Amino acid sequence: MFNQLGVIGCGLMGGSFALALKRAGLVKRVVGYSKSPSTTELAKRLGVIDTAAESALLAISGSDIVLVAVPVAATEVTFKSIMHLVEPHVLVMDVGSTKRDVVDTARRVLKDRIGSFVPAHPIAGSENSGVQHADASLYNNRQVILTPLPQTRPELVQKASDVWNAIGAQVLRMSPENHDAAFAAVSHLPHLLAFAYFSAIVNQPAGPEFLSLAGPGFRDFTRIAASDPSVWRDILLANREEVLKQSQRFRYALEIMERAMLNGDAQLLEERIRNASEPRSHWQIGGASRGTGSGA
Amino acid sequence: MFNQLGVIGCGLMGGSFALALKRAGLVKRVVGYSKSPSTTELAKRLGVIDTAAESALLAISGSDIVLVAVPVAATEVTFKSIMHLVEPHVLVMDVGSTKRDVVDTARRVLKDRIGSFVPAHPIAGSENSGVQHADASLYNNRQVILTPLPQTRPELVQKASDVWNAIGAQVLRMSPENHDAAFAAVSHLPHLLAFAYFSAIVNQPAGPEFLSLAGPGFRDFTRIAASDPSVWRDILLANREEVLKQSQRFRYALEIMERAMLNGDAQLLEERIRNASEPRSHWQIGGASRGTGSGA
Repeated sequence: MFNQLGVIGCGLMGGSFALALKRAGLVKRVVGYSKSPSTTELAKRLGVIDTAAESALLAISGSDIVLVAVPVAATEVTFKSIMHLVEPHVLVMDVGSTKRDVVDTARRVLKDRIGSFVPAHPIAGSENSGVQHADASLYNNRQVILTPLPQTRPELVQKASDVWNAIGAQVLRMSPENHDAAFAAVSHLPHLLAFAYFSAIVNQPAGPEFLSLAGPGFRDFTRIAASDPSVWRDILLANREEVLKQSQRFRYALEIMERAMLNGDAQLLEERIRNASEPRSHWQIGGASRGTGSGA
Repeated sequence: MFNQLGVIGCGLMGGSFALALKRAGLVKRVVGYSKSPSTTELAKRLGVIDTAAESALLAISGSDIVLVAVPVAATEVTFKSIMHLVEPHVLVMDVGSTKRDVVDTARRVLKDRIGSFVPAHPIAGSENSGVQHADASLYNNRQVILTPLPQTRPELVQKASDVWNAIGAQVLRMSPENHDAAFAAVSHLPHLLAFAYFSAIVNQPAGPEFLSLAGPGFRDFTRIAASDPSVWRDILLANREEVLKQSQRFRYALEIMERAMLNGDAQLLEERIRNASEPRSHWQIGGASRGTGSGA
Protein backbone atom coordinates (compact mmCIF):
# COMPACT_ATOMS: atom_id res chain seq x y z
CA MET A 1 0.00 0.00 0.00
CA PHE A 2 1.32 3.39 -1.00
CA ASN A 3 0.50 6.78 0.44
CA GLN A 4 0.77 8.84 -2.67
CA LEU A 5 1.24 8.15 -6.35
CA GLY A 6 2.83 10.92 -8.39
CA VAL A 7 2.00 10.64 -12.07
CA ILE A 8 4.08 12.71 -14.45
CA GLY A 9 2.36 12.68 -17.80
CA CYS A 10 -1.38 12.12 -17.40
CA GLY A 11 -1.99 10.33 -20.70
CA LEU A 12 -3.35 6.90 -21.52
CA MET A 13 -0.53 5.03 -19.75
CA GLY A 14 -0.17 7.24 -16.66
CA GLY A 15 -3.91 7.69 -16.28
CA SER A 16 -4.63 3.98 -16.59
CA PHE A 17 -1.97 3.19 -13.97
CA ALA A 18 -3.57 5.70 -11.57
CA LEU A 19 -7.05 4.25 -12.13
CA ALA A 20 -5.77 0.68 -11.69
CA LEU A 21 -4.02 1.48 -8.40
CA LYS A 22 -7.10 3.27 -7.13
CA ARG A 23 -9.40 0.43 -8.06
CA ALA A 24 -7.10 -2.09 -6.37
CA GLY A 25 -7.00 0.07 -3.23
CA LEU A 26 -3.22 0.35 -3.49
CA VAL A 27 -2.88 4.09 -3.08
CA LYS A 28 -4.45 6.76 -0.86
CA ARG A 29 -3.93 9.76 -3.11
CA VAL A 30 -2.88 10.48 -6.68
CA VAL A 31 -1.13 13.70 -7.61
CA GLY A 32 -0.67 14.36 -11.31
CA TYR A 33 1.25 16.69 -13.57
CA SER A 34 1.18 17.10 -17.33
CA LYS A 35 3.04 19.59 -19.46
CA SER A 36 -0.27 20.88 -20.76
CA PRO A 37 -2.40 22.34 -17.91
CA SER A 38 -5.60 21.42 -19.75
CA THR A 39 -4.55 17.75 -19.68
CA THR A 40 -3.89 17.86 -15.93
CA GLU A 41 -7.25 19.59 -15.47
CA LEU A 42 -9.05 16.96 -17.57
CA ALA A 43 -7.36 14.16 -15.61
CA LYS A 44 -8.66 15.71 -12.40
CA ARG A 45 -12.14 16.23 -13.81
CA LEU A 46 -12.26 12.57 -14.91
CA GLY A 47 -11.24 11.41 -11.44
CA VAL A 48 -7.99 9.93 -12.72
CA ILE A 49 -5.94 12.07 -10.34
CA ASP A 50 -7.01 13.69 -7.06
CA THR A 51 -4.74 16.71 -7.15
CA ALA A 52 -3.28 18.64 -10.06
CA ALA A 53 0.33 19.67 -9.45
CA GLU A 54 1.86 22.70 -11.10
CA SER A 55 5.20 21.09 -11.74
CA ALA A 56 6.72 17.64 -12.00
CA LEU A 57 8.64 18.29 -8.79
CA LEU A 58 5.43 19.17 -6.92
CA ALA A 59 3.80 15.99 -8.22
CA ILE A 60 6.43 13.82 -6.61
CA SER A 61 6.70 15.83 -3.41
CA GLY A 62 5.34 13.48 -0.74
CA SER A 63 4.95 10.58 -3.20
CA ASP A 64 6.33 7.15 -2.34
CA ILE A 65 5.59 5.84 -5.82
CA VAL A 66 6.18 7.82 -9.00
CA LEU A 67 5.27 6.94 -12.57
CA VAL A 68 7.02 8.91 -15.29
CA ALA A 69 4.75 8.42 -18.30
CA VAL A 70 6.08 11.02 -20.71
CA PRO A 71 7.23 10.59 -24.32
CA VAL A 72 10.69 8.97 -24.38
CA ALA A 73 12.32 12.21 -25.56
CA ALA A 74 10.99 14.07 -22.50
CA THR A 75 12.58 11.63 -20.04
CA GLU A 76 15.73 13.67 -19.48
CA VAL A 77 14.02 16.95 -18.69
CA THR A 78 11.60 15.11 -16.40
CA PHE A 79 14.35 13.36 -14.45
CA LYS A 80 16.21 16.65 -14.11
CA SER A 81 13.18 18.37 -12.69
CA ILE A 82 12.36 15.68 -10.11
CA MET A 83 15.80 14.39 -9.10
CA HIS A 84 16.11 16.44 -5.91
CA LEU A 85 13.10 14.71 -4.38
CA VAL A 86 14.04 11.16 -5.42
CA GLU A 87 14.66 9.80 -1.91
CA PRO A 88 15.98 6.26 -1.42
CA HIS A 89 12.57 4.87 -0.37
CA VAL A 90 10.73 6.33 -3.39
CA LEU A 91 9.93 3.88 -6.20
CA VAL A 92 10.31 5.64 -9.56
CA MET A 93 9.21 3.86 -12.74
CA ASP A 94 8.78 4.83 -16.35
CA VAL A 95 6.64 3.19 -19.04
CA GLY A 96 8.89 3.77 -22.04
CA SER A 97 8.82 1.44 -25.02
CA THR A 98 12.62 1.63 -25.27
CA LYS A 99 14.92 0.98 -22.36
CA ARG A 100 18.60 1.52 -23.25
CA ASP A 101 18.13 5.23 -23.86
CA VAL A 102 16.00 5.68 -20.73
CA VAL A 103 18.55 3.84 -18.61
CA ASP A 104 21.42 5.90 -20.05
CA THR A 105 19.53 9.09 -19.31
CA ALA A 106 18.64 7.96 -15.80
CA ARG A 107 22.29 7.07 -15.08
CA ARG A 108 23.47 10.43 -16.32
CA VAL A 109 20.84 12.56 -14.60
CA LEU A 110 19.91 10.72 -11.42
CA LYS A 111 23.55 9.78 -10.60
CA ASP A 112 23.72 8.39 -7.04
CA ARG A 113 19.91 8.42 -6.84
CA ILE A 114 19.69 5.84 -9.65
CA GLY A 115 18.93 3.12 -7.08
CA SER A 116 15.30 4.29 -6.87
CA PHE A 117 14.65 3.86 -10.56
CA VAL A 118 13.05 0.65 -11.80
CA PRO A 119 12.77 0.92 -15.61
CA ALA A 120 9.46 -0.57 -16.73
CA HIS A 121 7.75 -1.27 -20.03
CA PRO A 122 4.14 -2.40 -19.82
CA ILE A 123 3.15 -4.18 -23.06
CA ALA A 124 -0.15 -2.43 -23.28
CA GLY A 125 -1.56 0.59 -24.93
CA SER A 126 -3.80 1.53 -27.73
CA GLU A 127 -3.77 3.58 -30.89
CA ASN A 128 -6.06 5.89 -28.90
CA SER A 129 -3.90 8.16 -26.76
CA GLY A 130 -4.96 10.66 -24.15
CA VAL A 131 -6.30 10.57 -20.60
CA GLN A 132 -9.87 10.37 -21.89
CA HIS A 133 -9.08 6.77 -22.91
CA ALA A 134 -7.51 5.87 -19.54
CA ASP A 135 -8.78 2.50 -18.39
CA ALA A 136 -8.29 0.77 -15.02
CA SER A 137 -8.06 -2.56 -16.86
CA LEU A 138 -5.44 -1.53 -19.42
CA TYR A 139 -2.68 -3.55 -17.72
CA ASN A 140 -4.82 -6.52 -16.76
CA ASN A 141 -3.50 -9.75 -18.31
CA ARG A 142 -0.65 -7.84 -19.92
CA GLN A 143 3.08 -8.34 -19.55
CA VAL A 144 5.34 -5.77 -17.92
CA ILE A 145 9.07 -5.89 -18.53
CA LEU A 146 11.34 -4.59 -15.78
CA THR A 147 14.97 -3.88 -16.68
CA PRO A 148 16.62 -3.14 -13.30
CA LEU A 149 20.28 -2.07 -13.17
CA PRO A 150 22.97 -3.47 -10.90
CA GLN A 151 22.48 -0.37 -8.70
CA THR A 152 18.69 -0.65 -8.47
CA ARG A 153 17.59 -1.30 -4.86
CA PRO A 154 16.29 -4.89 -4.74
CA GLU A 155 13.42 -4.02 -2.38
CA LEU A 156 12.15 -1.48 -4.91
CA VAL A 157 12.32 -4.03 -7.72
CA GLN A 158 10.22 -6.27 -5.50
CA LYS A 159 7.76 -3.47 -4.79
CA ALA A 160 7.52 -2.73 -8.48
CA SER A 161 6.80 -6.39 -9.24
CA ASP A 162 4.17 -6.50 -6.51
CA VAL A 163 2.31 -3.44 -7.68
CA TRP A 164 2.16 -4.60 -11.33
CA ASN A 165 1.05 -8.05 -10.20
CA ALA A 166 -1.62 -6.50 -8.01
CA ILE A 167 -3.19 -4.75 -11.00
CA GLY A 168 -3.24 -7.96 -13.03
CA ALA A 169 0.00 -7.77 -15.00
CA GLN A 170 2.61 -10.48 -15.38
CA VAL A 171 6.16 -9.28 -14.65
CA LEU A 172 9.28 -10.33 -16.58
CA ARG A 173 12.85 -9.16 -16.03
CA MET A 174 15.31 -8.57 -18.84
CA SER A 175 18.40 -6.52 -19.57
CA PRO A 176 17.76 -3.18 -21.32
CA GLU A 177 19.70 -4.51 -24.34
CA ASN A 178 17.63 -7.67 -24.70
CA HIS A 179 14.48 -5.66 -24.19
CA ASP A 180 15.29 -3.27 -26.99
CA ALA A 181 16.29 -6.03 -29.39
CA ALA A 182 13.06 -7.94 -28.71
CA PHE A 183 10.75 -4.95 -29.04
CA ALA A 184 12.47 -3.70 -32.16
CA ALA A 185 11.39 -7.04 -33.62
CA VAL A 186 7.84 -7.43 -32.32
CA SER A 187 6.66 -3.86 -31.90
CA HIS A 188 8.82 -1.11 -33.37
CA LEU A 189 9.35 -2.68 -36.79
CA PRO A 190 5.64 -3.49 -37.26
CA HIS A 191 4.85 0.15 -36.51
CA LEU A 192 7.45 1.34 -39.01
CA LEU A 193 6.08 -1.02 -41.67
CA ALA A 194 2.47 -0.04 -40.99
CA PHE A 195 3.33 3.67 -41.22
CA ALA A 196 5.27 3.15 -44.46
CA TYR A 197 2.56 0.96 -45.95
CA PHE A 198 -0.33 3.29 -45.13
CA SER A 199 1.62 6.28 -46.30
CA ALA A 200 2.41 4.53 -49.63
CA ILE A 201 -1.31 3.92 -50.12
CA VAL A 202 -2.51 7.45 -49.39
CA ASN A 203 0.25 9.04 -51.48
CA GLN A 204 -0.89 7.55 -54.76
CA PRO A 205 -3.52 9.11 -57.03
CA ALA A 206 -6.02 6.26 -56.60
CA GLY A 207 -5.40 6.13 -52.82
CA PRO A 208 -8.85 7.43 -51.77
CA GLU A 209 -10.62 4.91 -54.02
CA PHE A 210 -8.40 2.08 -52.75
CA LEU A 211 -9.16 3.02 -49.14
CA SER A 212 -12.90 2.82 -49.76
CA LEU A 213 -12.48 -0.81 -50.90
CA ALA A 214 -10.34 -2.07 -48.04
CA GLY A 215 -11.66 -4.76 -45.73
CA PRO A 216 -11.08 -6.35 -42.33
CA GLY A 217 -7.57 -7.65 -43.13
CA PHE A 218 -6.45 -4.14 -44.04
CA ARG A 219 -8.16 -2.71 -40.96
CA ASP A 220 -6.24 -4.97 -38.58
CA PHE A 221 -2.94 -4.77 -40.46
CA THR A 222 -2.99 -0.96 -40.34
CA ARG A 223 -4.50 -0.39 -36.91
CA ILE A 224 -1.11 0.54 -35.40
CA ALA A 225 -0.51 3.05 -38.22
CA ALA A 226 -2.91 5.36 -36.34
CA SER A 227 -0.46 5.57 -33.41
CA ASP A 228 0.75 8.88 -32.04
CA PRO A 229 3.37 10.47 -34.35
CA SER A 230 5.55 12.16 -31.73
CA VAL A 231 5.63 9.11 -29.47
CA TRP A 232 6.64 6.86 -32.35
CA ARG A 233 9.13 9.33 -33.79
CA ASP A 234 10.92 9.13 -30.43
CA ILE A 235 10.74 5.35 -30.18
CA LEU A 236 12.00 4.78 -33.72
CA LEU A 237 14.87 7.20 -33.19
CA ALA A 238 15.80 5.92 -29.73
CA ASN A 239 15.93 2.31 -30.89
CA ARG A 240 16.95 2.87 -34.49
CA GLU A 241 19.94 0.57 -34.43
CA GLU A 242 17.89 -2.48 -33.49
CA VAL A 243 14.91 -1.48 -35.63
CA LEU A 244 17.09 -1.09 -38.71
CA LYS A 245 18.66 -4.51 -38.03
CA GLN A 246 15.19 -6.03 -37.94
CA SER A 247 14.16 -4.12 -41.01
CA GLN A 248 17.11 -5.69 -42.87
CA ARG A 249 15.86 -9.15 -41.96
CA PHE A 250 12.37 -8.23 -43.08
CA ARG A 251 13.60 -6.85 -46.41
CA TYR A 252 15.52 -10.04 -47.01
CA ALA A 253 12.43 -12.17 -46.38
CA LEU A 254 10.38 -9.89 -48.64
CA GLU A 255 12.95 -10.07 -51.45
CA ILE A 256 12.89 -13.86 -51.43
CA MET A 257 9.13 -13.82 -51.83
CA GLU A 258 9.19 -11.13 -54.51
CA ARG A 259 11.79 -13.10 -56.44
CA ALA A 260 9.65 -16.22 -56.20
CA MET A 261 6.72 -14.22 -57.59
CA LEU A 262 8.81 -12.77 -60.43
CA ASN A 263 10.14 -16.22 -61.33
CA GLY A 264 6.71 -17.81 -61.05
CA ASP A 265 8.22 -20.20 -58.51
CA ALA A 266 4.98 -21.42 -56.93
CA GLN A 267 6.70 -24.01 -54.76
CA LEU A 268 9.15 -21.59 -53.14
CA LEU A 269 6.45 -18.96 -52.69
CA GLU A 270 4.11 -21.40 -50.98
CA GLU A 271 6.94 -22.64 -48.77
CA ARG A 272 7.72 -19.07 -47.64
CA ILE A 273 4.04 -18.35 -46.93
CA ARG A 274 3.73 -21.60 -45.00
CA ASN A 275 6.85 -20.65 -43.02
CA ALA A 276 4.80 -17.71 -41.65
CA SER A 277 1.28 -19.07 -41.75
CA GLU A 278 1.88 -22.28 -39.83
CA PRO A 279 3.56 -20.74 -36.73
CA ARG A 280 1.24 -17.70 -36.81
CA SER A 281 -1.84 -19.89 -36.63
CA HIS A 282 -0.49 -21.47 -33.43
CA TRP A 283 0.70 -18.25 -31.84
CA GLN A 284 -1.19 -16.40 -29.13
CA ILE A 285 -0.47 -13.43 -26.90
CA GLY A 286 1.56 -14.27 -23.83
CA GLY A 287 1.70 -17.92 -24.82
CA ALA A 288 4.70 -20.04 -25.54
CA SER A 289 5.75 -19.69 -29.17
CA ARG A 290 4.47 -23.19 -29.86
CA GLY A 291 1.29 -22.73 -27.84
CA THR A 292 -2.19 -23.44 -29.06
CA GLY A 293 -5.05 -21.09 -29.65
CA SER A 294 -6.90 -19.36 -32.41
CA GLY A 295 -4.39 -16.59 -32.80
CA ALA A 296 -7.36 -14.37 -33.57
CA MET B 1 -35.77 -17.08 -55.77
CA PHE B 2 -33.63 -19.88 -57.15
CA ASN B 3 -34.45 -23.52 -57.46
CA GLN B 4 -31.04 -24.94 -56.91
CA LEU B 5 -27.67 -23.58 -55.89
CA GLY B 6 -24.66 -25.55 -57.03
CA VAL B 7 -21.59 -24.89 -54.88
CA ILE B 8 -18.27 -26.03 -56.25
CA GLY B 9 -15.74 -25.83 -53.44
CA CYS B 10 -17.45 -26.22 -50.07
CA GLY B 11 -15.06 -24.10 -48.02
CA LEU B 12 -15.54 -20.97 -45.95
CA MET B 13 -16.65 -18.83 -48.88
CA GLY B 14 -18.86 -21.36 -50.68
CA GLY B 15 -20.31 -22.72 -47.44
CA SER B 16 -21.13 -19.25 -46.11
CA PHE B 17 -22.85 -18.32 -49.39
CA ALA B 18 -24.99 -21.47 -49.18
CA LEU B 19 -25.95 -20.78 -45.57
CA ALA B 20 -26.75 -17.13 -46.32
CA LEU B 21 -29.02 -18.04 -49.27
CA LYS B 22 -30.77 -20.66 -47.18
CA ARG B 23 -31.32 -18.29 -44.29
CA ALA B 24 -32.71 -15.62 -46.62
CA GLY B 25 -35.07 -18.17 -48.19
CA LEU B 26 -33.53 -17.55 -51.61
CA VAL B 27 -32.94 -21.15 -52.65
CA LYS B 28 -34.87 -24.41 -52.43
CA ARG B 29 -31.95 -26.82 -52.57
CA VAL B 30 -28.16 -26.71 -52.34
CA VAL B 31 -25.99 -29.26 -54.10
CA GLY B 32 -22.30 -29.20 -53.27
CA TYR B 33 -19.07 -30.62 -54.60
CA SER B 34 -15.55 -30.43 -53.22
CA LYS B 35 -12.41 -32.05 -54.55
CA SER B 36 -12.02 -33.86 -51.25
CA PRO B 37 -14.99 -36.18 -50.56
CA SER B 38 -14.54 -35.74 -46.80
CA THR B 39 -15.12 -31.97 -47.20
CA THR B 40 -18.30 -32.52 -49.19
CA GLU B 41 -19.40 -35.03 -46.57
CA LEU B 42 -18.68 -32.58 -43.72
CA ALA B 43 -20.58 -29.82 -45.54
CA LYS B 44 -23.58 -32.11 -45.78
CA ARG B 45 -23.31 -33.18 -42.13
CA LEU B 46 -23.19 -29.51 -41.05
CA GLY B 47 -26.31 -28.73 -43.09
CA VAL B 48 -24.41 -26.36 -45.37
CA ILE B 49 -25.43 -28.35 -48.45
CA ASP B 50 -28.41 -30.67 -48.90
CA THR B 51 -26.91 -33.05 -51.43
CA ALA B 52 -23.32 -34.09 -52.01
CA ALA B 53 -22.46 -34.36 -55.70
CA GLU B 54 -19.76 -36.67 -56.98
CA SER B 55 -18.46 -34.24 -59.55
CA ALA B 56 -18.52 -30.53 -60.33
CA LEU B 57 -20.69 -31.26 -63.36
CA LEU B 58 -23.25 -33.14 -61.25
CA ALA B 59 -23.30 -30.23 -58.77
CA ILE B 60 -24.44 -27.81 -61.43
CA SER B 61 -26.83 -30.18 -63.15
CA GLY B 62 -30.25 -28.66 -62.53
CA SER B 63 -28.81 -25.57 -60.82
CA ASP B 64 -29.95 -22.10 -61.86
CA ILE B 65 -27.28 -20.45 -59.72
CA VAL B 66 -23.70 -21.72 -59.40
CA LEU B 67 -20.92 -20.50 -57.13
CA VAL B 68 -17.40 -21.56 -58.06
CA ALA B 69 -15.50 -21.11 -54.80
CA VAL B 70 -12.25 -22.93 -55.53
CA PRO B 71 -8.66 -21.67 -55.24
CA VAL B 72 -7.86 -19.31 -58.14
CA ALA B 73 -5.52 -21.87 -59.69
CA ALA B 74 -8.32 -24.44 -59.87
CA THR B 75 -10.61 -22.15 -61.85
CA GLU B 76 -9.62 -23.48 -65.26
CA VAL B 77 -10.15 -27.15 -64.51
CA THR B 78 -13.46 -26.30 -62.83
CA PHE B 79 -14.77 -24.31 -65.78
CA LYS B 80 -13.71 -27.11 -68.13
CA SER B 81 -15.60 -29.68 -66.13
CA ILE B 82 -18.85 -27.70 -65.90
CA MET B 83 -18.97 -25.83 -69.23
CA HIS B 84 -21.31 -28.25 -70.99
CA LEU B 85 -24.10 -27.51 -68.51
CA VAL B 86 -23.68 -23.73 -68.45
CA GLU B 87 -26.99 -22.84 -70.10
CA PRO B 88 -27.84 -19.22 -70.92
CA HIS B 89 -30.22 -18.83 -67.95
CA VAL B 90 -27.72 -20.15 -65.40
CA LEU B 91 -25.97 -17.53 -63.26
CA VAL B 92 -22.36 -18.59 -62.64
CA MET B 93 -20.21 -16.62 -60.21
CA ASP B 94 -16.80 -17.08 -58.66
CA VAL B 95 -15.40 -15.55 -55.45
CA GLY B 96 -11.79 -15.12 -56.52
CA SER B 97 -9.60 -12.40 -55.00
CA THR B 98 -8.10 -11.69 -58.43
CA LYS B 99 -10.18 -11.02 -61.49
CA ARG B 100 -8.05 -10.54 -64.62
CA ASP B 101 -6.78 -14.11 -64.55
CA VAL B 102 -10.23 -15.54 -63.82
CA VAL B 103 -11.78 -13.53 -66.64
CA ASP B 104 -9.05 -14.63 -69.07
CA THR B 105 -9.60 -18.25 -68.10
CA ALA B 106 -13.38 -17.92 -68.41
CA ARG B 107 -13.05 -16.35 -71.86
CA ARG B 108 -10.76 -19.14 -73.01
CA VAL B 109 -12.71 -22.04 -71.55
CA LEU B 110 -16.36 -20.99 -71.59
CA LYS B 111 -16.13 -19.41 -75.07
CA ASP B 112 -19.67 -18.61 -76.30
CA ARG B 113 -21.09 -19.53 -72.89
CA ILE B 114 -19.18 -16.64 -71.25
CA GLY B 115 -22.42 -14.62 -71.07
CA SER B 116 -23.51 -16.60 -68.02
CA PHE B 117 -20.44 -15.75 -65.99
CA VAL B 118 -20.54 -12.82 -63.56
CA PRO B 119 -17.08 -12.52 -61.96
CA ALA B 120 -17.47 -11.66 -58.27
CA HIS B 121 -15.16 -10.86 -55.39
CA PRO B 122 -16.80 -10.62 -51.98
CA ILE B 123 -14.54 -8.61 -49.61
CA ALA B 124 -15.02 -11.00 -46.78
CA GLY B 125 -13.24 -13.94 -45.36
CA SER B 126 -11.19 -14.94 -42.44
CA GLU B 127 -7.81 -16.40 -41.65
CA ASN B 128 -9.86 -19.46 -40.62
CA SER B 129 -10.58 -21.47 -43.72
CA GLY B 130 -12.77 -24.55 -44.11
CA VAL B 131 -16.48 -25.32 -44.15
CA GLN B 132 -16.49 -25.73 -40.37
CA HIS B 133 -16.14 -21.93 -40.16
CA ALA B 134 -18.92 -21.26 -42.67
CA ASP B 135 -21.18 -18.50 -41.41
CA ALA B 136 -24.50 -17.26 -42.82
CA SER B 137 -23.50 -13.71 -41.83
CA LEU B 138 -20.06 -13.70 -43.48
CA TYR B 139 -21.18 -11.41 -46.31
CA ASN B 140 -23.44 -9.20 -44.24
CA ASN B 141 -22.34 -5.56 -44.37
CA ARG B 142 -19.49 -6.47 -46.70
CA GLN B 143 -18.74 -5.20 -50.17
CA VAL B 144 -18.90 -7.43 -53.24
CA ILE B 145 -17.16 -6.36 -56.42
CA LEU B 146 -18.65 -7.54 -59.72
CA THR B 147 -16.50 -7.25 -62.84
CA PRO B 148 -18.89 -8.12 -65.71
CA LEU B 149 -17.59 -8.34 -69.28
CA PRO B 150 -19.12 -6.76 -72.37
CA GLN B 151 -20.57 -10.18 -73.19
CA THR B 152 -22.09 -10.82 -69.78
CA ARG B 153 -25.91 -11.04 -69.95
CA PRO B 154 -27.28 -7.91 -68.24
CA GLU B 155 -30.15 -9.75 -66.60
CA LEU B 156 -27.66 -12.09 -64.92
CA VAL B 157 -25.60 -9.14 -63.64
CA GLN B 158 -28.85 -7.82 -62.16
CA LYS B 159 -29.66 -11.19 -60.62
CA ALA B 160 -26.16 -11.34 -59.15
CA SER B 161 -26.55 -7.86 -57.64
CA ASP B 162 -29.93 -8.80 -56.21
CA VAL B 163 -28.75 -11.99 -54.56
CA TRP B 164 -25.73 -10.32 -52.91
CA ASN B 165 -27.91 -7.42 -51.76
CA ALA B 166 -30.44 -9.87 -50.35
CA ILE B 167 -27.79 -11.42 -48.09
CA GLY B 168 -26.68 -8.03 -46.81
CA ALA B 169 -23.78 -7.18 -49.09
CA GLN B 170 -23.21 -3.91 -50.93
CA VAL B 171 -22.45 -4.38 -54.64
CA LEU B 172 -19.91 -2.36 -56.65
CA ARG B 173 -18.99 -2.76 -60.30
CA MET B 174 -15.48 -2.30 -61.62
CA SER B 175 -13.35 -3.45 -64.52
CA PRO B 176 -11.18 -6.51 -63.84
CA GLU B 177 -8.08 -4.31 -64.30
CA ASN B 178 -9.14 -1.69 -61.76
CA HIS B 179 -10.16 -4.41 -59.38
CA ASP B 180 -6.78 -6.09 -59.49
CA ALA B 181 -4.89 -2.81 -59.08
CA ALA B 182 -6.99 -1.83 -56.07
CA PHE B 183 -6.75 -5.19 -54.31
CA ALA B 184 -3.05 -5.48 -54.94
CA ALA B 185 -2.81 -2.29 -52.88
CA VAL B 186 -5.25 -2.92 -50.03
CA SER B 187 -5.20 -6.69 -49.68
CA HIS B 188 -2.52 -8.60 -51.56
CA LEU B 189 0.44 -6.43 -50.56
CA PRO B 190 -0.52 -6.41 -46.85
CA HIS B 191 -0.64 -10.21 -46.98
CA LEU B 192 2.78 -10.37 -48.65
CA LEU B 193 4.23 -7.99 -46.04
CA ALA B 194 2.67 -9.86 -43.14
CA PHE B 195 4.02 -13.20 -44.43
CA ALA B 196 7.50 -11.74 -44.96
CA TYR B 197 7.50 -10.02 -41.58
CA PHE B 198 6.34 -13.06 -39.61
CA SER B 199 8.74 -15.30 -41.44
CA ALA B 200 11.64 -12.91 -40.69
CA ILE B 201 10.75 -13.09 -36.99
CA VAL B 202 10.50 -16.86 -36.74
CA ASN B 203 13.67 -17.44 -38.77
CA GLN B 204 15.99 -15.74 -36.29
CA PRO B 205 17.58 -17.49 -33.31
CA ALA B 206 15.72 -15.39 -30.72
CA GLY B 207 12.42 -15.72 -32.62
CA PRO B 208 10.63 -17.92 -30.06
CA GLU B 209 11.57 -15.56 -27.21
CA PHE B 210 10.47 -12.54 -29.24
CA LEU B 211 7.12 -14.17 -30.01
CA SER B 212 6.44 -14.75 -26.32
CA LEU B 213 6.79 -10.99 -25.69
CA ALA B 214 4.57 -9.74 -28.50
CA GLY B 215 1.40 -7.83 -27.67
CA PRO B 216 -1.91 -6.70 -29.22
CA GLY B 217 -0.33 -4.52 -31.92
CA PHE B 218 1.67 -7.49 -33.19
CA ARG B 219 -1.37 -9.73 -32.98
CA ASP B 220 -3.48 -7.51 -35.23
CA PHE B 221 -0.64 -6.66 -37.61
CA THR B 222 0.13 -10.35 -38.20
CA ARG B 223 -3.41 -11.79 -38.16
CA ILE B 224 -3.48 -12.14 -41.96
CA ALA B 225 -0.12 -13.95 -41.89
CA ALA B 226 -2.09 -17.02 -40.74
CA SER B 227 -3.94 -17.14 -44.07
CA ASP B 228 -4.06 -20.25 -46.21
CA PRO B 229 -0.73 -20.82 -48.04
CA SER B 230 -2.03 -22.37 -51.26
CA VAL B 231 -4.79 -19.79 -51.67
CA TRP B 232 -2.32 -16.93 -51.20
CA ARG B 233 0.35 -18.50 -53.36
CA ASP B 234 -2.20 -18.43 -56.20
CA ILE B 235 -3.36 -14.87 -55.52
CA LEU B 236 0.17 -13.47 -55.31
CA LEU B 237 1.16 -15.23 -58.52
CA ALA B 238 -2.00 -14.35 -60.41
CA ASN B 239 -1.72 -10.66 -59.55
CA ARG B 240 2.05 -10.39 -59.25
CA GLU B 241 2.43 -7.51 -61.66
CA GLU B 242 0.19 -5.18 -59.63
CA VAL B 243 1.44 -6.50 -56.29
CA LEU B 244 5.06 -5.87 -57.24
CA LYS B 245 4.15 -2.34 -58.37
CA GLN B 246 2.59 -1.69 -54.98
CA SER B 247 5.54 -3.27 -53.23
CA GLN B 248 7.83 -0.78 -55.00
CA ARG B 249 5.80 2.11 -53.64
CA PHE B 250 5.90 0.60 -50.18
CA ARG B 251 9.68 0.09 -50.32
CA TYR B 252 10.14 3.68 -51.36
CA ALA B 253 8.06 4.93 -48.40
CA LEU B 254 10.00 2.62 -46.08
CA GLU B 255 13.35 3.84 -47.40
CA ILE B 256 12.46 7.46 -46.74
CA MET B 257 11.63 6.61 -43.14
CA GLU B 258 14.73 4.47 -42.66
CA ARG B 259 16.89 7.25 -44.03
CA ALA B 260 15.26 9.72 -41.67
CA MET B 261 16.05 7.35 -38.79
CA LEU B 262 19.66 6.90 -39.90
CA ASN B 263 20.13 10.65 -40.24
CA GLY B 264 18.42 11.36 -36.95
CA ASP B 265 16.01 13.58 -38.88
CA ALA B 266 13.24 13.78 -36.28
CA GLN B 267 11.19 16.30 -38.22
CA LEU B 268 11.06 14.29 -41.44
CA LEU B 269 10.39 11.07 -39.54
CA GLU B 270 7.48 12.60 -37.63
CA GLU B 271 6.09 14.09 -40.83
CA ARG B 272 6.13 10.68 -42.52
CA ILE B 273 4.46 9.03 -39.52
CA ARG B 274 1.82 11.76 -39.42
CA ASN B 275 1.24 11.25 -43.15
CA ALA B 276 -0.01 7.74 -42.23
CA SER B 277 -1.36 8.26 -38.75
CA GLU B 278 -3.68 11.16 -39.48
CA PRO B 279 -5.63 9.58 -42.38
CA ARG B 280 -5.61 6.16 -40.71
CA SER B 281 -7.27 7.50 -37.58
CA HIS B 282 -10.15 8.82 -39.74
CA TRP B 283 -10.49 5.74 -41.91
CA GLN B 284 -13.15 3.11 -41.45
CA ILE B 285 -14.28 0.07 -43.40
CA GLY B 286 -16.65 0.84 -46.25
CA GLY B 287 -16.55 4.54 -45.42
CA ALA B 288 -15.39 7.38 -47.57
CA SER B 289 -11.65 7.85 -47.33
CA ARG B 290 -12.21 11.08 -45.40
CA GLY B 291 -15.00 9.63 -43.26
CA THR B 292 -15.16 9.73 -39.50
CA GLY B 293 -15.04 6.90 -37.03
CA SER B 294 -12.72 5.20 -34.62
CA GLY B 295 -10.90 3.16 -37.23
CA ALA B 296 -10.59 0.48 -34.54
